Amino acid sequence: MNPDERRGQPAIDGVTLDHIGIVTTDVAASVALHRGQLGMTLLREERLERPGLEAILLGLGSTRIELLAPFRKDTPVGSFLERRGPGLHHLAFRVDRMPDAVARLVAYGLEPLTAEPEPGLGGTSTIFFHPRSANGILIELVTPATDAEDR
Amino acid sequence: MNPDERRGQPAIDGVTLDHIGIVTTDVAASVALHRGQLGMTLLREERLERPGLEAILLGLGSTRIELLAPFRKDTPVGSFLERRGPGLHHLAFRVDRMPDAVARLVAYGLEPLTAEPEPGLGGTSTIFFHPRSANGILIELVTPATDAEDR
Repeated sequence: MNPDERRGQPAIDGVTLDHIGIVTTDVAASVALHRGQLGMTLLREERLERPGLEAILLGLGSTRIELLAPFRKDTPVGSFLERRGPGLHHLAFRVDRMPDAVARLVAYGLEPLTAEPEPGLGGTSTIFFHPRSANGILIELVTPATDAEDR
Repeated sequence: MNPDERRGQPAIDGVTLDHIGIVTTDVAASVALHRGQLGMTLLREERLERPGLEAILLGLGSTRIELLAPFRKDTPVGSFLERRGPGLHHLAFRVDRMPDAVARLVAYGLEPLTAEPEPGLGGTSTIFFHPRSANGILIELVTPATDAEDR
């Protein structure tokens, strides 16, 4: 199916907002604001050596906030922090069928940052698309750990 | 109550994520991606003369995306676009009781951009807080139109 035919198709099935990614230089202050003031719940904390960051997942109803605190500059998130400062970083959409969703967005013109989805927080499978191909938004697709075995 | 006492209080009651604000230079392309590919539904379109922007509200489950396309540079969103380019702009949290929530966040140290909440999209009441006071995030509080009469 070529891109023009895909444009006429219904949208990807079962898309939900998985989380909003936020880059911070001060985890304690960010947690104090989002958890202590805005009432989010602490869901998960992980230190990830390869992407060089602490990741903290907070829940707010059906939505989640992912705080990312890079501890190295020579990483994608560390580089973002150097260039842009702390703030909103990415939007992650949960999809039921990762291979179909990736193929669909690639055919539409979005540029994946990796050749294949990679392991994410908590055993998920994730892939990012370059903001220049998505109207300035760094978009992540994510599938839960159980679905990742399908690909 | 002083700020230190507030820090020990439970969080603001009833906070939910109302929407994610996105600045775009190309409404058609943004709608095509978010609606056509990611399956969001078109909820509202408005042209707002005072803030100088087109606003388009898209729904995705319980979450919403607000696309903002400024048509003037001499406005807050137009200025943001000039400085930062298109992309993620703000997080809006819905609160049940606006006066209490504002007092609480001001006491915590967040800097409101206006002295009082102002009319927002669709008859809502909204107030923004400066990113420098909120770890880099432009935070909006919003109450539905019906609640705005309480303040």
